[in-house]
Amino acid sequence: MVVLTAAEQPTTSTSTIDTISPVNEALHIRRRPTINATTSTTEVQKSAGLSSSPSEMAPSCPRTGRRRRRVMLVGTGAAAILFVIAFFGFPTAVSPRAIAAESRRASSTAAFDLNRGTNNNKMANGDSQYQVVERGSLFTLDYRVFIKGPNGFVSPWHDIPLFVDEAKKIYNMVVEIPRWTNAKMEMATKEPLTPIKQDEKKGVPRFVHNIFPHRGYIWNYGALPQTWEDPSHKDVNTNANGDNDPIDVIEIGSAVQPRGAVVPVKILGTLALLDEGETDWKLVAISTADPLADKVNNIADVEANFPGLLKATEEWFRIYKIPAGKPVNEIAFNGEFKDADFAHNIIAETHEFWKALIKEDKPKLNTETHVEGAAHPAKDDAWNKAVEATPALGEPKAAPAENDKWHFIKLP
Amino acid sequence: MVVLTAAEQPTTSTSTIDTISPVNEALHIRRRPTINATTSTTEVQKSAGLSSSPSEMAPSCPRTGRRRRRVMLVGTGAAAILFVIAFFGFPTAVSPRAIAAESRRASSTAAFDLNRGTNNNKMANGDSQYQVVERGSLFTLDYRVFIKGPNGFVSPWHDIPLFVDEAKKIYNMVVEIPRWTNAKMEMATKEPLTPIKQDEKKGVPRFVHNIFPHRGYIWNYGALPQTWEDPSHKDVNTNANGDNDPIDVIEIGSAVQPRGAVVPVKILGTLALLDEGETDWKLVAISTADPLADKVNNIADVEANFPGLLKATEEWFRIYKIPAGKPVNEIAFNGEFKDADFAHNIIAETHEFWKALIKEDKPKLNTETHVEGAAHPAKDDAWNKAVEATPALGEPKAAPAENDKWHFIKLP
Repeated sequence: MVVLTAAEQPTTSTSTIDTISPVNEALHIRRRPTINATTSTTEVQKSAGLSSSPSEMAPSCPRTGRRRRRVMLVGTGAAAILFVIAFFGFPTAVSPRAIAAESRRASSTAAFDLNRGTNNNKMANGDSQYQVVERGSLFTLDYRVFIKGPNGFVSPWHDIPLFVDEAKKIYNMVVEIPRWTNAKMEMATKEPLTPIKQDEKKGVPRFVHNIFPHRGYIWNYGALPQTWEDPSHKDVNTNANGDNDPIDVIEIGSAVQPRGAVVPVKILGTLALLDEGETDWKLVAISTADPLADKVNNIADVEANFPGLLKATEEWFRIYKIPAGKPVNEIAFNGEFKDADFAHNIIAETHEFWKALIKEDKPKLNTETHVEGAAHPAKDDAWNKAVEATPALGEPKAAPAENDKWHFIKLP
Repeated sequence: MVVLTAAEQPTTSTSTIDTISPVNEALHIRRRPTINATTSTTEVQKSAGLSSSPSEMAPSCPRTGRRRRRVMLVGTGAAAILFVIAFFGFPTAVSPRAIAAESRRASSTAAFDLNRGTNNNKMANGDSQYQVVERGSLFTLDYRVFIKGPNGFVSPWHDIPLFVDEAKKIYNMVVEIPRWTNAKMEMATKEPLTPIKQDEKKGVPRFVHNIFPHRGYIWNYGALPQTWEDPSHKDVNTNANGDNDPIDVIEIGSAVQPRGAVVPVKILGTLALLDEGETDWKLVAISTADPLADKVNNIADVEANFPGLLKATEEWFRIYKIPAGKPVNEIAFNGEFKDADFAHNIIAETHEFWKALIKEDKPKLNTETHVEGAAHPAKDDAWNKAVEATPALGEPKAAPAENDKWHFIKLP
């Protein structure tokens, strides 16, 4: 039997900028100094080397060693150049304004291509209180997606509340992998701020293969914050231990959700993948903003509204590692999806494991968080410095040609 | 019975820059003045408003009315700015060199995303003698892809030879729609140069819907040059008339082929779609450069090497118009694919229809071509002017949100 604790207390905070929910009666919100959100954002951007100057908003400006000197000289240099321009007009070949404008427009177009480029801070859930801060270069091991709330950086694993509305069973989902993309992104559970980074195999960024008829991941894939699949816990259903990660979610709605999006979802059911011997729950969810969200309340509603998707999902998880030379994955319960109630119980259980984890004195994962009562409170200054110490956002590395290939696999 | 003519004469031209093959004994190559290919290209670029200046290579530079004046002043203005820079260094916020470099790099990344952006002149078949020249803005009715050979612009429909190697039955395919994209592109059969443009419905650029489990077109889609499905001809197999277009091809190889690519293919078979009552052959082909090309010689080899693809193909064509409110399409021969020999005969027949078409005095389609003996010889000066008269390459318009949506259709 799955051991479950009592339901969570509803959030008691009334502050609109307070993004941290209480974990339980022993873990209250640690209120952070209330500062103007805009000012705070700007300051952190500056300290993180992220400029707020419009002409530097292009997401792919690598910083050079000359930057500091250039900033000091910007006033004088710009005035002199403006003087020249006033007399001669912008020469085409070096028109900085025109090219800067190009650069921004090109970026905003490229931004939509999540299989090739960066998020460019575009969020599908545009009204979210969370922003993404991308660092490093996409498709390299340096790439990180940090998440910022109104008061500064947060850990997407520990600081984003599990529940949007506990009574209505609406959860937050952190999107790691947009639909139709191949890069295997996940929260870095051992790093401060637990940013999203690309998984690696043998020192190389990992991509999933396209298996006909699918292209990359066939849902928006991510995890529920404030959950943990405890590797010391053997699941009574699967007889296998947890995989040491937050619990995985596939979001089946129409919209392609960008990396780092924090999306309120309804939970519809779950599959129990036995991925190389570990229990790896794959919750099935739909964004509450999806046009079909009201119609879909349980796993049976999925087949009615998305015919073929559950079968494709089960098949996808069985075979997705075959082109990489791995065997077919097993799925517990003969591949059957469990319903929403079962899934809610699994989530509650992994939420309890997480609560215990963040109280551990010497956890093997990074549990720094703003959640009150945690053993390792987040230090904002150290976090800002940690972000600043990462490479600035650079050009995406070219995606491997393999991303354009289809693998054809005939299952027996 | 399909009426077939004798096999074509092999190409007699030995000139490596002569891209036009003879059509039959009455239609010889009209040799064009041999000019240096590089010079020719540059001149046409200039006359078409396409700059060859490195800092303007970004594909998305809209031209402004101030351009002419800027060009005249570039020497003086640049010298003055260089003077300022020598003394003060580049200020960060307006560093033109850095931003121009950004812009080019961003473009070369974005270029790979054919579902969102432009080709950026990148061709999958990099050693092809053909180049694409994009004009207008992607996803608008202005968008055009012109094709250039070593001697200047060509009509992809009329001037590119049907055969790469007639004895080996290797054909040229003109790619109109890259795999996994949604924009319905096709050769504009009524326009001079028959460039590729986006099909329109009721004045709006047309996109196909994503039907689960597929994203956009599931092959590289295009047409064979120098073929025509004569609408006055009732096919004896399908009892339906031709659709007035060059014959369609789906290319099933691994690589995603960009719009306008000219790809040598092997023909493997064909489906006979009855699209809204018209005979619409869909040839199945594979690029001769594909790693599997040697293994795949006939339609039976497709199922062996690409299991599930033919079934998916048939289903795709049956249902692809349903989200647009159209009925299920019919397929002749009970949905059965015909083999390579059958397909070769159909191609030969449509090649004959095309030969007759380009000899017509008053055709309803544009048949201007460099092919000798055609009723309407191409005039290079007029073609260059026609290209120049089209809008310069601009920013892609945002793709419709619908492109990110999956439609789920349950067939009875």
